Amino acid sequence: MTAETSRVEAFSDGVFAIAITLLILEIKVPPAGSGALPRDLLRQWPSYFSFLISFAFIGIMWINHHRLFTHIARCDDALLILNLLLLLGVVVVPFPTAVLATHLGQSDQLTALILYNSTYLFIAVFFNLLWRYASSDKRRLLAKDVNSPSVQRISRQYAFGPVLYLVCLGLSWLSAAASLALNFALACFFAIPPNVVGSERE
Amino acid sequence: MTAETSRVEAFSDGVFAIAITLLILEIKVPPAGSGALPRDLLRQWPSYFSFLISFAFIGIMWINHHRLFTHIARCDDALLILNLLLLLGVVVVPFPTAVLATHLGQSDQLTALILYNSTYLFIAVFFNLLWRYASSDKRRLLAKDVNSPSVQRISRQYAFGPVLYLVCLGLSWLSAAASLALNFALACFFAIPPNVVGSERE
Amino acid sequence: MTAETSRVEAFSDGVFAIAITLLILEIKVPPAGSGALPRDLLRQWPSYFSFLISFAFIGIMWINHHRLFTHIARCDDALLILNLLLLLGVVVVPFPTAVLATHLGQSDQLTALILYNSTYLFIAVFFNLLWRYASSDKRRLLAKDVNSPSVQRISRQYAFGPVLYLVCLGLSWLSAAASLALNFALACFFAIPPNVVGSERE
Amino acid sequence: MTAETSRVEAFSDGVFAIAITLLILEIKVPPAGSGALPRDLLRQWPSYFSFLISFAFIGIMWINHHRLFTHIARCDDALLILNLLLLLGVVVVPFPTAVLATHLGQSDQLTALILYNSTYLFIAVFFNLLWRYASSDKRRLLAKDVNSPSVQRISRQYAFGPVLYLVCLGLSWLSAAASLALNFALACFFAIPPNVVGSERE
Repeated sequence: MTAETSRVEAFSDGVFAIAITLLILEIKVPPAGSGALPRDLLRQWPSYFSFLISFAFIGIMWINHHRLFTHIARCDDALLILNLLLLLGVVVVPFPTAVLATHLGQSDQLTALILYNSTYLFIAVFFNLLWRYASSDKRRLLAKDVNSPSVQRISRQYAFGPVLYLVCLGLSWLSAAASLALNFALACFFAIPPNVVGSERE
Repeated sequence: MTAETSRVEAFSDGVFAIAITLLILEIKVPPAGSGALPRDLLRQWPSYFSFLISFAFIGIMWINHHRLFTHIARCDDALLILNLLLLLGVVVVPFPTAVLATHLGQSDQLTALILYNSTYLFIAVFFNLLWRYASSDKRRLLAKDVNSPSVQRISRQYAFGPVLYLVCLGLSWLSAAASLALNFALACFFAIPPNVVGSERE
Repeated sequence: MTAETSRVEAFSDGVFAIAITLLILEIKVPPAGSGALPRDLLRQWPSYFSFLISFAFIGIMWINHHRLFTHIARCDDALLILNLLLLLGVVVVPFPTAVLATHLGQSDQLTALILYNSTYLFIAVFFNLLWRYASSDKRRLLAKDVNSPSVQRISRQYAFGPVLYLVCLGLSWLSAAASLALNFALACFFAIPPNVVGSERE
Repeated sequence: MTAETSRVEAFSDGVFAIAITLLILEIKVPPAGSGALPRDLLRQWPSYFSFLISFAFIGIMWINHHRLFTHIARCDDALLILNLLLLLGVVVVPFPTAVLATHLGQSDQLTALILYNSTYLFIAVFFNLLWRYASSDKRRLLAKDVNSPSVQRISRQYAFGPVLYLVCLGLSWLSAAASLALNFALACFFAIPPNVVGSERE
């Protein structure tokens, strides 16, 4: 973090923090008087389920955003715009999450899954664009040497993102369970620090 | 950013971040059971459309706010009040956005457009007042010399704001499409750094 | 702002920023199809009105919070608790605002006004407690000398708060218009820097 | 606070600030026209009650989070994940709070209480895990010496958390009033600085 990037990080932190907290508003409170609250609560499992995946996703995205900006020391206008496009994806997440929560296990499950996975694919693509722009040789926005191993390890790990989220999207047509399981596994994969993933031996 | 302005920026960042994230709450989730989720989702295009314009507008306003405060080094009480009036505009944005989303393509479209464009005009005016106050010769709130080219370039670009948003408002009566297209084009125009817009050659 | 108080300020800024932005969610969007959007919008004047007073109140409270913490350099546990009680008042504001918006001009107007003014009285009391605790001679939480004129001027201006908000509450029984007008006037009064209010000549 | 942990704190502050502010959205505004607003407002006492307990809980949790990070100077990936799990608990709080507000004094009160107390137990466990991980001898994430009295006092106070919240959960079956009273007492207990609780003489 440098003085130059600190306000971008503060604004991004705010957006991440709000988007992750708003997710809970999508979980509805069963009304009083049914006399069967345990059953009413259990019936809402798709809401809890999609809440948890989205929470993990946004939280781990934040960890990654934090990781990138440990390396990024300077900021230009194109980086601000790319960051804004990434945040667009983050802000949108509560909507496909709520759509998935409403339609999981219903007749329109496939459409909800496609919407959900497409959002994540969009975010993965912009995460890569942001990082590729910042770490590009010409721009010198990084603090460290562009060829440093830690920079290259991030680039290597991130290159998997769009491909794997595309697989996730493709799986929507074959199996909802497999698609969501891979989606969750991907969040965990990006939680692993790149020096664990990307190192060959070192 | 200086110690003196850092809390103003933190508070403003918070307001921008929340206003931009709350926009998504206006997009409603189609209920389960209709069996036609793709159609239900597509029908909501005015919601997505007004969400995107407002997201671009608030995001780019934030970039501009960030730009101004790169130059502003000192803070007085009048600046705090002017900043608060600007934030009033930002906070209000989700309301005309939701009104536009509900009434675009309906019989009351014109009223919704007038409300929407008036909000943006209000914000453009206060952005100018804030900047003119801060960059005024007497007050010495800027870090750099008031006559520096970069300060003058910002003043020149911002002078267009109120005029062009007034044109936008006027277009509401002639063509909704043209008005919204110009609105979006204006957001993009203010995303361009002032040294690209304002420089003749230098 | 010091390292010791910076996180208290960051958390408080967050709460102020969110409370002020959530106010807009209480303004409802008139549904499509009535064909009379201008009239529907105008009918909601109590919503706009209470939104504006509450926005001014929270915004100016933030300015004052900012002012206090310019003087407060150290932080202890009791100050954290007092600050939390102040923030409790801030967080609550959207509720009496929405109650007022719903009941202004209706049969239950008086109850709504009492609730609204009581909240503000509560906040004024805790603002004073916070400042009196921090500026107390023994605790040495201030950066400057406790007897400095600027510290004494704040104490003098703040002493008016609880008394005047009590008058505001009393006016609820006599005239809703007078009570709300005084409420708004008070927000403006606290926007004035204490060196303008409290100085005799100096 | 160090540069290394400052963004973790900023993000956490954001989440705490939003979760605590969103609580107010669960309190509904009685509709106009009943002519009995005072009675309608009083009838909602379970909402105010659960709002206040949750506000105290999140606020005091924030104070504790702040206290921990006064000691934590370095940050690794496991700490980020543990912090995220703690924040998961914080984000969830508005949901059991709303469930409790709806079902307190109704036939399904017990289920609501179990859900409420379980959430708090979950958070207490992760607070301990976070602190135990950070203060572990091997990891050296603390600024001070791990054996310093103030670090040991925090460990001692926190060890009570999970046990006492488990008692709280157990009390749900015996007496709702006792369970909620203990819950609120626990929030107050953790507001007390550890040097008051844990000191034997010193």
